[in-house]
Amino acid sequence: MTLESFINEAISPWMLEDGPDKDIVMSSRVRLARNFADKLYPTSGNQEALEEVLQFIRKNYTQQEDTEQDSISFIPMKNLSMIEKLVLVEKHLISPHLIKHSDHAAVLLSAQEQTSIMVNEEDHLRIQVYYPGLQLRKALEEAYYLDDWLEEKADYAFDETKGYLTSCPTNIGTGMRASIMMHLPALVLTKQINRLIPAINQLGLVVRGIYGEGSEARGNIFQISNQITLGKSEEDIVEDLESIVNQLVEHERMARVYIYEQSEISLEDRVFRSYGTLKNSRIIDSKEAAICISNLRLGIDLGIIENISENILNELMVLTQPGFLQHYANKALRSDERDIRRASIIRERLNLKK
Amino acid sequence: MTLESFINEAISPWMLEDGPDKDIVMSSRVRLARNFADKLYPTSGNQEALEEVLQFIRKNYTQQEDTEQDSISFIPMKNLSMIEKLVLVEKHLISPHLIKHSDHAAVLLSAQEQTSIMVNEEDHLRIQVYYPGLQLRKALEEAYYLDDWLEEKADYAFDETKGYLTSCPTNIGTGMRASIMMHLPALVLTKQINRLIPAINQLGLVVRGIYGEGSEARGNIFQISNQITLGKSEEDIVEDLESIVNQLVEHERMARVYIYEQSEISLEDRVFRSYGTLKNSRIIDSKEAAICISNLRLGIDLGIIENISENILNELMVLTQPGFLQHYANKALRSDERDIRRASIIRERLNLKK
Repeated sequence: MTLESFINEAISPWMLEDGPDKDIVMSSRVRLARNFADKLYPTSGNQEALEEVLQFIRKNYTQQEDTEQDSISFIPMKNLSMIEKLVLVEKHLISPHLIKHSDHAAVLLSAQEQTSIMVNEEDHLRIQVYYPGLQLRKALEEAYYLDDWLEEKADYAFDETKGYLTSCPTNIGTGMRASIMMHLPALVLTKQINRLIPAINQLGLVVRGIYGEGSEARGNIFQISNQITLGKSEEDIVEDLESIVNQLVEHERMARVYIYEQSEISLEDRVFRSYGTLKNSRIIDSKEAAICISNLRLGIDLGIIENISENILNELMVLTQPGFLQHYANKALRSDERDIRRASIIRERLNLKK
Repeated sequence: MTLESFINEAISPWMLEDGPDKDIVMSSRVRLARNFADKLYPTSGNQEALEEVLQFIRKNYTQQEDTEQDSISFIPMKNLSMIEKLVLVEKHLISPHLIKHSDHAAVLLSAQEQTSIMVNEEDHLRIQVYYPGLQLRKALEEAYYLDDWLEEKADYAFDETKGYLTSCPTNIGTGMRASIMMHLPALVLTKQINRLIPAINQLGLVVRGIYGEGSEARGNIFQISNQITLGKSEEDIVEDLESIVNQLVEHERMARVYIYEQSEISLEDRVFRSYGTLKNSRIIDSKEAAICISNLRLGIDLGIIENISENILNELMVLTQPGFLQHYANKALRSDERDIRRASIIRERLNLKK
């Protein structure tokens, strides 16, 4: 795999596959934080230790053909331009944190982009596995498989009572963060989301926007993940999260029926106006684009709009981010220039239809 | 001619013809107010006198084939439904005043709809002649011709010093009102219109919206007419008005160049977004529709939008009025129902293109 294949397409190959409740649950992700027992944590800032970990990974885990996974590429961060790094963040393949400390950081990426293992992020290893729709258990199994594969040649920092040790105490124990990306336009439209989020928080879960911590719920996309990593098994955490997500899916489905029955024509008006804006605007900021893309996707889900792939939501949400726009323009762009590029890239994409 | 031909088409046949500065000056109109010497004015409310005038006109001026005008139809108001009357008002073929007193009122309409003679409006006769673009002199000549034709069989109320006598003193003298309908989107966009209107008023002219007195300048359409009818010849009034209109045309042209040069992409964004809204909305009120239609027409004028007739402005502005919407629906509609019909009729019209 070359770098180009990862950064030229906005949509990851695994996203095109089917998954349970995929109309509402865009993706399931399991992330495991792991550290080597005999190395200083990346947060120590010790350059030598960081470089040692990086070389250890390069030497032992690249060009492996012995996994059930598709082939894995080793991509050192310092080989990438700022825009290329931004693109990987926008595709959720690496974290913003990895960019900030990119001198000794790298990522191992599978060709399907379903697996991403960050090296020298906050922890030595951050194993991430994505699945389309609601498939947290599958993602967990795959993460375990990768964990075993990595552990074969390394000694993890592990404590019999505390579990896996991590840089940040919030990850200690399982080192696992399970998260779900959901499209909840009807719960937003009916304002039910405002009472649901506090309720979800009380259950020890966290609700965030599409780009994680501190990010807005752009395009009615919400990320829901576990807060607690200690004192509960990975399986229990995943089960609890799935149960909440299933309830949210039901609420969203009911809300969709409700708004459609309340006023079919109002909903059609909303959907088609957004479609018209996406197909016609020459300047569009990311916030308006996200709203319109969300409405378009809702229209596709409800059969109001036909002949457009449901993947348009995932694709356009990423395609219209600053990194991608600059990558395609092949240069740095000011905010007002991005608004023009964004409008033009959306029009081009919609003209392609499927 | 049957009534249907007048009320089924939103655009009058004469509007399709070319005229000077037609991209900015939508139409020129001359109206002459005339009264018969030996009859009570319509404002007297005397039913007998009103009926007498109506029968006099019917007897003497219908089924005439001796004019250079195309054949003229006599349409008594009481034969029309409320919606049909509304349609004629929206096409500017009759005035709202004529509807209010429709028991003994009528209109003589030419097939091209270029000539409309209202009977028993505020005065016994209101001769109206329309021309496309800036052609007030031609309209005046045609009005004179009709005036002579009408006078052949009647004795007008005329005073040697005061001139033509009218119901309302504001029309006395020439009895003439010359008016111009202009599309001035760039003067509105650059806010220049705000200082131009008071200046025009100071010159003894009146600026109104598309539906005359008290109406808003919907769709950036302004009606400019003479205030004074006394102490100045018809030719002088027309000449003065044309001179002001020519200056406004120049200002509008410069403003269009200015806004296009200032930011081509912003103007394109405005035009295409409006086009997208018109093509996609399922609910649209008359105010938003007017703004979008005006932007679309500006886009056509500037070559931003192609393959759509410039007559779309005149046509859609009329087509989206309450009377027309109800006429097409063949029933009375509530305001919210009209918003839905308006959106649907606009989409249908735009799908036809030319």
